[in-house]
Amino acid sequence: MKNDFVLIGVIGGNDVSPQVAELAEEVGREIARRGAILVCGGMGGVMEAACRGACDEGGMTIGILPGESRNDANPYVRIPILTGIGYARNIAVVKSSRAIIAVDGAYGTLTEIGYALQGGTPVIGLDTWSLAIKGKTDKNIINAKNPKDAVDKAISLIKKSSL
Amino acid sequence: MKNDFVLIGVIGGNDVSPQVAELAEEVGREIARRGAILVCGGMGGVMEAACRGACDEGGMTIGILPGESRNDANPYVRIPILTGIGYARNIAVVKSSRAIIAVDGAYGTLTEIGYALQGGTPVIGLDTWSLAIKGKTDKNIINAKNPKDAVDKAISLIKKSSL
Amino acid sequence: MKNDFVLIGVIGGNDVSPQVAELAEEVGREIARRGAILVCGGMGGVMEAACRGACDEGGMTIGILPGESRNDANPYVRIPILTGIGYARNIAVVKSSRAIIAVDGAYGTLTEIGYALQGGTPVIGLDTWSLAIKGKTDKNIINAKNPKDAVDKAISLIKKSSL
Amino acid sequence: MKNDFVLIGVIGGNDVSPQVAELAEEVGREIARRGAILVCGGMGGVMEAACRGACDEGGMTIGILPGESRNDANPYVRIPILTGIGYARNIAVVKSSRAIIAVDGAYGTLTEIGYALQGGTPVIGLDTWSLAIKGKTDKNIINAKNPKDAVDKAISLIKKSSL
Repeated sequence: MKNDFVLIGVIGGNDVSPQVAELAEEVGREIARRGAILVCGGMGGVMEAACRGACDEGGMTIGILPGESRNDANPYVRIPILTGIGYARNIAVVKSSRAIIAVDGAYGTLTEIGYALQGGTPVIGLDTWSLAIKGKTDKNIINAKNPKDAVDKAISLIKKSSL
Repeated sequence: MKNDFVLIGVIGGNDVSPQVAELAEEVGREIARRGAILVCGGMGGVMEAACRGACDEGGMTIGILPGESRNDANPYVRIPILTGIGYARNIAVVKSSRAIIAVDGAYGTLTEIGYALQGGTPVIGLDTWSLAIKGKTDKNIINAKNPKDAVDKAISLIKKSSL
Repeated sequence: MKNDFVLIGVIGGNDVSPQVAELAEEVGREIARRGAILVCGGMGGVMEAACRGACDEGGMTIGILPGESRNDANPYVRIPILTGIGYARNIAVVKSSRAIIAVDGAYGTLTEIGYALQGGTPVIGLDTWSLAIKGKTDKNIINAKNPKDAVDKAISLIKKSSL
Repeated sequence: MKNDFVLIGVIGGNDVSPQVAELAEEVGREIARRGAILVCGGMGGVMEAACRGACDEGGMTIGILPGESRNDANPYVRIPILTGIGYARNIAVVKSSRAIIAVDGAYGTLTEIGYALQGGTPVIGLDTWSLAIKGKTDKNIINAKNPKDAVDKAISLIKKSSL
């Protein structure tokens, strides 16, 4: 029975434009259509839009929240995990996910991308951060063309890592 | 859709006698029979026995793990949440649960009881710690007679707090 | 140069009686007189009184705080460590200390005692929690007669563990 | 007595080239020369080199470590803070510092830069990450020409924020 669910993380800012929210919602829909569980930080913006999309398709959503109150969760978080550890919870969002899809991104998203790349969790990006150091671009964020492509890439990388 | 699940925590040691495991397994069964989700620390002993009981009844189990590997989860954790924060994750087990059932108990269980009582999460005890300070017994751990009684008391306290 | 300081933790409630504060202050004084560094949770009550005592004797004090603002620290915390992880920081207070002195105690203190006993950090108690399970008293909290005795016992146990 | 010390964070990879280590060591020296306390993650690479520089100048160094053993600290950490929360401790390094100096950088450094920029802690960079989103470069990392310039900028920003 172990590992009978696949958890995919969606990360992004708490306060985003309607265009970004639309992208995130479509990512959530796609995750639900594949039968995977959507994991996120449980709050607004990208997180809320993605959860709404997943719920619309009858999917399951988990929000790993910074605080101690389930009222902090957006209305589409079906299972709130309340950590009480503030933004240190970002690492738990990443570690719990088999792959991460970053949509747009604020600075919190950057911490999650850092944790994912450090630990070898695949990061798929949709209009998200690009990184360079000493003039050299980091190639470890995998860019996707659209929400469907992002989820395709996530699933394919998860399958590869399970072989 | 929000709050459509009720999460009940089961806490106790990682290495327990067969008698304690039997109690924990029956607690897990009862939680599943009520349609609640079992939350625990995801490891062995009381946690594994409780998850096994819940799974046997077709229930849902969430393990909030200290480490970063889903292989650390016992085989009856259906959704592993990997925190990477070590035993600081004990606070997340407590905060995520609407009530906590403590079965027997090692020192980690004591930390969880402390976090629960501090934050007002009901603690139901089955052969667990009793506490006293300056010769005065603490009455805030609610003792149960058996697993069914423990889950009855948990559900009833959760209902009361939702009114 | 490594390990050139000895850190001793003082734990206890955030809101205490004048008698308890006096005990804690004297513990702080004694820690400073031995040239050790006082570690605590950085807030009020026992923590503030202990830091005040240590500062009065020219000692060094470190407060490991739950929040992100140095203004949360009591006025006698000379080095505030801001964790941002809420009460999960209790584990860091314990792990950073070579021994823990518990003065009186609220439920947060109980979590710290649990973490200390779990990890083998000596716990010396002054009018603090006593614990029992299945009718059997836990003997691992070492009771002290007074603040001087508590610090004597802490230092002696630290020396023994360093051999 | 409160706030009588100024804490400056130094972040960077655990495994670095001799050139990077030299930069970090000089940053550590400069911090000590100004009478500030150096805060870091307590491990190798940039952290060790910076601590060595600070110690050479008679400065004070604090290492906020991921694990539970003071033996994990590099030999120039004078006060080890043991968190037991793994790489979630990165947020505590950032929050405890009045400003952060990033030297070179691995992915963990990226998480610290994210936490700092999110919370408004100044980030001064020496050959560190540069960030862009949707083709727009992020200007919030302040680049320094050399170690002395980095510490000058850190001190000046801390003074400004204290007014």
